[in-house]
Amino acid sequence: MARQHSRRRLVSSELLEHSARLFATQGYANTSFQDIADAMGISRPALYHYVSNKEEILAALVRDVLERVVEILEQARGREDLDEDQRVEQALRRIAVNNARNTTRFRLLDRSEPDLPAEIAEMHRAARRRVLELFTGLIEDAVQAGRFRPLPARTVALGMLGMVNWVAWWYRADHDGDAEAMADVLVDLAMSGVRRDDERQVQPGPWAALALLKEDLNHLEGALSAALTSGSSPSADPGSRS
Amino acid sequence: MARQHSRRRLVSSELLEHSARLFATQGYANTSFQDIADAMGISRPALYHYVSNKEEILAALVRDVLERVVEILEQARGREDLDEDQRVEQALRRIAVNNARNTTRFRLLDRSEPDLPAEIAEMHRAARRRVLELFTGLIEDAVQAGRFRPLPARTVALGMLGMVNWVAWWYRADHDGDAEAMADVLVDLAMSGVRRDDERQVQPGPWAALALLKEDLNHLEGALSAALTSGSSPSADPGSRS
Repeated sequence: MARQHSRRRLVSSELLEHSARLFATQGYANTSFQDIADAMGISRPALYHYVSNKEEILAALVRDVLERVVEILEQARGREDLDEDQRVEQALRRIAVNNARNTTRFRLLDRSEPDLPAEIAEMHRAARRRVLELFTGLIEDAVQAGRFRPLPARTVALGMLGMVNWVAWWYRADHDGDAEAMADVLVDLAMSGVRRDDERQVQPGPWAALALLKEDLNHLEGALSAALTSGSSPSADPGSRS
Repeated sequence: MARQHSRRRLVSSELLEHSARLFATQGYANTSFQDIADAMGISRPALYHYVSNKEEILAALVRDVLERVVEILEQARGREDLDEDQRVEQALRRIAVNNARNTTRFRLLDRSEPDLPAEIAEMHRAARRRVLELFTGLIEDAVQAGRFRPLPARTVALGMLGMVNWVAWWYRADHDGDAEAMADVLVDLAMSGVRRDDERQVQPGPWAALALLKEDLNHLEGALSAALTSGSSPSADPGSRS
């Protein structure tokens, strides 16, 4: 029991990290037990002390990634203090940030699918079904409550999941900045796409007005830099307006 | 030259289809030349008549998938008869439908990345960069033209591509119906997420952006005076300031 615990603790940290990176970059089939031991700076026999084979590591990685997403969705569903659309919004934001922080593991999960032993493959499929079921449920609730437009929930769920899952294929902190800010843009895009029109009208209060202002300042910035870099642009001449 | 042509014709049809399916289901590394010959119902020596190795097949598959997407984007960019937002919309719809019809090839492309020989891997990366560059350009044009909200173009491009690329991971004709109808839902979702409200649709250029800003400043003024005076002094409406 104590052995089980210490093993689990180790497996869930450094070993998983190194293995995920190796599996994702050189492929599961091309990664040997020795490669993993080398990456961790320990001997092969020492590695056997913690895990008995590659499959065991892969199983832990699969469980890890999808259980986290299921957890996020279940927590969002339980948020009785939020409106139905806000639950979707919250889940989406957390999944996007989670994927940005675990790009390697997420892609590995997909890539290793043909290598998964039958039992793990079934666990994987079941977890994916559960994610889709939970997320589709959240969207159906928001449609029922009149907060979303009545689009087909399954397709909307898969469209939104695609948006945030794809993050694992492109997000790089040095290129895309803060994960939270990136998630805000995707969530804004996704939520504006489904919220009913009346919800998209200008909300009352100064904060909503400030948000609009910020949006327009960005627009002005873009328009100005385009106008200023395109050399002499007679149509953008103040004088021509009067 | 004739041999080249006949080889290419064959490679681009049955051989590619069988190979893509085998690579995607059992992994590139686990698929032998013999497996491919078996799937096609020909002998191994007969297969060598058309291609010399697995790498050659993989290279053809990679080229095939991404070239199609680049083509769609270049065609959309050339549609002078369409508005800037409609070009994005058209490209998005065609990519979604294309992915629904080529799910196996698309997923294979991602899965086989660790197995790609250096030269093909570079070709793959260059094509991916080209796709992102073209699509980001289409979105920037729509923002400049005042048809899209001024969100960061790269993140919006990747969010939208995620939505349509993910189709390859879930679409099944028997489950999700007609590919065109599925694409309509995703495109509706994506475009509603970025289009400016009709009332706020603006002309390009800094003066139009300034006009919007003034509009929002008025809105902020009203909202603030309402928030600051609510309850205490109902007579302090904007009119009382002048």
